[in-house]
Amino acid sequence: MSKAEIGLIGLGVMGSNLALNIAEKGYPIAVYNRTSTRTGAFFENAGDLRGNIVPCASLEELVAQIKPPRPIILMVQAGKAVDEQIEGLRDLLAQGDIIIDAGNANFRDTMRRFAELEGSGLTFIGMGVSGGEEGARHGPSIMVGGKEDAYKRVESVLTAIAARYEGEPCCAWLGEGGAGHFVKTIHNGIEYADMQMIAEIYGILRDGFGMEAKEIGAIFARWNEGRLNSYLVEITAAVLEAADPVSGKPMVDMILDRAGQKGTGRWSAVEAQMMGVPATAIESAVAARSLSAEKELREAAASAYGGAAEPAGRAPDKAFIDDLELALFAGKIAAYAQGFAVMAEASSEFKWNLPMPAIARIWRAGCIIRSQFLGTLARSFEADTKAENLLLIGDFVEMMNEAQPSLRRVVSHAALGGLPAPALSAALGYFDAFRQARGTANLIQAQRDYFGAHGFERVDVEGEHHGPWGSGAAS
Amino acid sequence: MSKAEIGLIGLGVMGSNLALNIAEKGYPIAVYNRTSTRTGAFFENAGDLRGNIVPCASLEELVAQIKPPRPIILMVQAGKAVDEQIEGLRDLLAQGDIIIDAGNANFRDTMRRFAELEGSGLTFIGMGVSGGEEGARHGPSIMVGGKEDAYKRVESVLTAIAARYEGEPCCAWLGEGGAGHFVKTIHNGIEYADMQMIAEIYGILRDGFGMEAKEIGAIFARWNEGRLNSYLVEITAAVLEAADPVSGKPMVDMILDRAGQKGTGRWSAVEAQMMGVPATAIESAVAARSLSAEKELREAAASAYGGAAEPAGRAPDKAFIDDLELALFAGKIAAYAQGFAVMAEASSEFKWNLPMPAIARIWRAGCIIRSQFLGTLARSFEADTKAENLLLIGDFVEMMNEAQPSLRRVVSHAALGGLPAPALSAALGYFDAFRQARGTANLIQAQRDYFGAHGFERVDVEGEHHGPWGSGAAS
Repeated sequence: MSKAEIGLIGLGVMGSNLALNIAEKGYPIAVYNRTSTRTGAFFENAGDLRGNIVPCASLEELVAQIKPPRPIILMVQAGKAVDEQIEGLRDLLAQGDIIIDAGNANFRDTMRRFAELEGSGLTFIGMGVSGGEEGARHGPSIMVGGKEDAYKRVESVLTAIAARYEGEPCCAWLGEGGAGHFVKTIHNGIEYADMQMIAEIYGILRDGFGMEAKEIGAIFARWNEGRLNSYLVEITAAVLEAADPVSGKPMVDMILDRAGQKGTGRWSAVEAQMMGVPATAIESAVAARSLSAEKELREAAASAYGGAAEPAGRAPDKAFIDDLELALFAGKIAAYAQGFAVMAEASSEFKWNLPMPAIARIWRAGCIIRSQFLGTLARSFEADTKAENLLLIGDFVEMMNEAQPSLRRVVSHAALGGLPAPALSAALGYFDAFRQARGTANLIQAQRDYFGAHGFERVDVEGEHHGPWGSGAAS
Repeated sequence: MSKAEIGLIGLGVMGSNLALNIAEKGYPIAVYNRTSTRTGAFFENAGDLRGNIVPCASLEELVAQIKPPRPIILMVQAGKAVDEQIEGLRDLLAQGDIIIDAGNANFRDTMRRFAELEGSGLTFIGMGVSGGEEGARHGPSIMVGGKEDAYKRVESVLTAIAARYEGEPCCAWLGEGGAGHFVKTIHNGIEYADMQMIAEIYGILRDGFGMEAKEIGAIFARWNEGRLNSYLVEITAAVLEAADPVSGKPMVDMILDRAGQKGTGRWSAVEAQMMGVPATAIESAVAARSLSAEKELREAAASAYGGAAEPAGRAPDKAFIDDLELALFAGKIAAYAQGFAVMAEASSEFKWNLPMPAIARIWRAGCIIRSQFLGTLARSFEADTKAENLLLIGDFVEMMNEAQPSLRRVVSHAALGGLPAPALSAALGYFDAFRQARGTANLIQAQRDYFGAHGFERVDVEGEHHGPWGSGAAS
């Protein structure tokens, strides 16, 4: 007799925690893992929740244990494993069953799978889940892509397990096909930019002023009480204040400066480039991680060029600390403007009709970039649904106008002092180009016409024109 | 009786000029165009070169007119048209014949076509041609990809039509498959960065000091006599000094600031991101073009934020003009370092073994980015074949050390003055992160371990470690 209301395949860290979360919310769940010892161990450790968990030794058993129509969550490694799992399930499932891929899939794979399953009677949902393992266990942010009616059939369990922000579940249906996984990808791209800008501020304080990790941590802790209040700023303070149990020194000082990355940051940058949407703050954050991996090259370059100037040997004054806070805030606004612009373009290109206010709302809790800022963003998007760019929404104009002078001073300070600030600079460059009614692309158009007879538009007369240099004047 | 030594399909601007170039160098050439009136017109206008040109009304005739083994150049629009043309030729050609795609193909298409034709007895060459229509007519830079022995069979005609630098032809075999088209793509990516940095300097002078186009042109003309000597700086001076025949005003002032782009700049950025190689100067140049197209948004943003500060109302002093020259030079070094790093990674990923000195040599003449700088680059690469990055080659270390303080001052000046300098800033950010032995990615690794238990390396002990915050401390 089938008793489970939902199934889950893949009991890794994320899958196990998601399954416990579901069981805890009162939904009986059938679970299966390719290695059956893991299924057993998971069940053993599930304590009181065992009553709501049905461990299964085979896919056939899993399917038999779920009441039809069956929702089955896949939490296996993104890529080939997902396709294999779908193949394995296809013949076992019946009309109306729903396969939900909750891994970090590339949204193009999700679109393909969605198309492949459409018409087969089965339904496919691609679902982005953010919040790490703790999020999976106690409330992640959930970004759903697929058919809306399919979502309706799993909405109650998904909203039950999602994070809550002032009582509202951080879970939403965002559009068909790859919409959910695309939004998750951009979430991660923005996360890269957020983290990189924080690291740049840290570098300015550490290398420009010779401050200790703990002192810098205290500054971030203070900022977390104000407009920068966010999970990432909070944990920045925490990690900067933590001591290494081995050496007693600040933990961060013992960590190698070589950062890893998952595919998602890179995918955001690739997709933004493919669509021709500027995402330079995200791109420079991805580039910074790549460069961090080139430790040996960097050491060679430091020998060749010397590093930045010696630390000032004095603490930064209050005005400069305030500048750093506002610079980070201004950089954040520009980076989010880029991320949301990428989503807007994708929404139109893939006909998703992405609900921007809902995206901001479900990012307010559960996910890594959750912040007070996203609350403001959600409210502003709701109030100004026609805005084509975050930088043009009233509240943000005001905030940006207040913060941008600080961003200028910090970028200038970093440039003169030899301190890398690529993401903050990219944010400023984007803002300054964006608010320039008359840009400098007229010169580029003149050059292109000169060497390639590409033609240009004039400011006074419509149509395509050529310069007086004649066609292909020089080469 | 077949008399032609080579064939060419596609008599657009580039194809016609290339055919005339080939005929002029003494190689009888059979030409074909899908619209036969164009073939006739081309032949009519070929003047004295008609003796070396065989106009053909069909593909069959074209093939019959070329002595086997036949090299046939395709100069049709990149994309589907190339595949169709190959399909049309396949059954007409014989063992040993060579199809040469000279269009702006995406190198991934070239790799696919190369693989498809391999084993069929036919040979495929993907060839990047740079220099615009005048280059095609009188000497382009030619970047060849395919089998080396196939190149050997067409080497004499290709080197005959190529541009010459101090007598040396700007044509080289660069590697198998997509190598030639990939190098052409990166050439264009670098060209985007070069042009954008020039436009930023122009903007600083125009908007920061209120200088007239002609005055700015004179500065570029002077720079063209020095270390910045290059085709792009030369034509920048020319277009800035040109007057609009209609209004009498400076031509550039009458051109709309909305720039177009071909796919190649974007492709460079996408490929760099996919391989995880920082190419932020190229990316920001592509982003700047995209942003230039958003004229209405920019106008709205200018209303919301105001533009940059009013021009200083005084001419820049000599020291600042010198700073701009050196800033452009330093930015150029960093952008080229990125472009060559992207090629180095692709060379290893696709097993091309790209010859970096040869690439620098064939870019010294014929192509859009030709410059004195590339002469230095070619010599330096030959002298230091082991260098892993342009920024680590002796000559460049010296040049960069001289120029980088100016780049700092200019980026700082632009940041404080509200003048967009995204590519120059990206170049500086890259340089500063590159020469930082101890970066700030330790903080990023701490954050990632905190929220995702990703683990980190320590500076003192090998292996993967975790911080004292415990696994998944917060979310």
